[in-house]
Amino acid sequence: MKNKLTLVKVGGQIVEEPETLKQLLNDFSNLEGHKVLVHGGGRAATRIAGQLGIESKMVNGRRVTDADMLQVVTMVYGGLVNKQIVAGLQALNVNALGLTGADMNYMRSEKRPVKDVDYGFVGDVKEVNADILASLINEGVVPVLAPLTHDKQGNLLNTNADTIAGEAAKALAQYFDVTLMFCFEKKGVLRNPDDEDSMIPEITKPAFDAFVADGTIQGGMIPKLENAFEAIAAGVKEVIISKADEIGKGTGTVVK
Amino acid sequence: MKNKLTLVKVGGQIVEEPETLKQLLNDFSNLEGHKVLVHGGGRAATRIAGQLGIESKMVNGRRVTDADMLQVVTMVYGGLVNKQIVAGLQALNVNALGLTGADMNYMRSEKRPVKDVDYGFVGDVKEVNADILASLINEGVVPVLAPLTHDKQGNLLNTNADTIAGEAAKALAQYFDVTLMFCFEKKGVLRNPDDEDSMIPEITKPAFDAFVADGTIQGGMIPKLENAFEAIAAGVKEVIISKADEIGKGTGTVVK
Repeated sequence: MKNKLTLVKVGGQIVEEPETLKQLLNDFSNLEGHKVLVHGGGRAATRIAGQLGIESKMVNGRRVTDADMLQVVTMVYGGLVNKQIVAGLQALNVNALGLTGADMNYMRSEKRPVKDVDYGFVGDVKEVNADILASLINEGVVPVLAPLTHDKQGNLLNTNADTIAGEAAKALAQYFDVTLMFCFEKKGVLRNPDDEDSMIPEITKPAFDAFVADGTIQGGMIPKLENAFEAIAAGVKEVIISKADEIGKGTGTVVK
Repeated sequence: MKNKLTLVKVGGQIVEEPETLKQLLNDFSNLEGHKVLVHGGGRAATRIAGQLGIESKMVNGRRVTDADMLQVVTMVYGGLVNKQIVAGLQALNVNALGLTGADMNYMRSEKRPVKDVDYGFVGDVKEVNADILASLINEGVVPVLAPLTHDKQGNLLNTNADTIAGEAAKALAQYFDVTLMFCFEKKGVLRNPDDEDSMIPEITKPAFDAFVADGTIQGGMIPKLENAFEAIAAGVKEVIISKADEIGKGTGTVVK
């Protein structure tokens, strides 16, 4: 039998406010068993870029990463956000280790080909070397993954944190019974986005397809759920979509 | 018999220029056996701080690190400089892993007490957990150490890269025959700072004391050599003070 591992992905907003970050790190530190944290940091990147006179360009909700912006996200995701989380977890006796895909070459990507949009220095994941992560996790280390990969040719690449979480979860499913938890600002997948009580407790692929067809599920939730079903298909045991302040409470939408 | 390990410390200037960085990474990748790289990044920190409207204050050649400057060095040392080095080494098939002291709690420090000068968020090293570093090194991982430590209470602290190198070398001397190499802009310790041919090939503690007494050795070279003798006294096999572009050539001043 494989050991249980919980992989939690939290967005930028939560890790950038001292109060919500503190709560998150507390809740995360109380999770039992092996665990991994994946974080965003987009708001901090936009803020620091602005202070440096670099404009943030978004297309379809994704950041366009030119050479200057790549330096900003390398600093902010790999340094500022990642290391503050690591230090915060160490204070709670969680043996955190901050990683980008370049570190131990754990996640290799390729620069996204230019089609309709040139996203710049953005990486599509090609290879996850989960063995080294699994061996560290088995020694009690808790990886903290920044949304950065590399192409193994010397270039760091910006990679969406949901993608990092999904790819890491799939690769770690060889070694562990993985629960992947996507945390965002709502309690879970809602039938009515304005009503937190309309949360769908459990969702299957046929139900998802029907909800998309009738317009109940739309926008950014669609790729998030597609990621979730892909993870399940690739061996991840369970995907939960929930609110960051409900980590460990067993709430949220369970994707099956 | 212990295996050989080479720990190379390079200053900010070398890692911040693309050309000298490329040369350094090439030379470092060609070093045989186990190895560790320690880097600075002060110039980049000063530059980015300036762009963010934060003034760099130096006292006795050391950076005063207020809360804003701590954010800058966390970004620049832990993110920008460290991850670019890691990605560059991975491209040369060196299995690099970037670390601050918070990562796996490998180096714990305490905020320097305020005496004549308040250096701010600067850490004096208190504990090095070399066992986890040694075990990674034995698996072929090459740690790349940023000049940041933490206090295990959630705070990152700025720590001089020479100090990081010396403390890591001393702690790793339990597991390896350590050669510690301090790279700077001169060929080695010079009798006459303006004459590269006046390099002292080998220096012992009594010779050092005499050179300090007669004024041959002065300024920043004194703490560097004091660090070196301290490392030797603590079990480091050899300390070499050399030029970055002579890594692996067996040149420089050997401290015994």
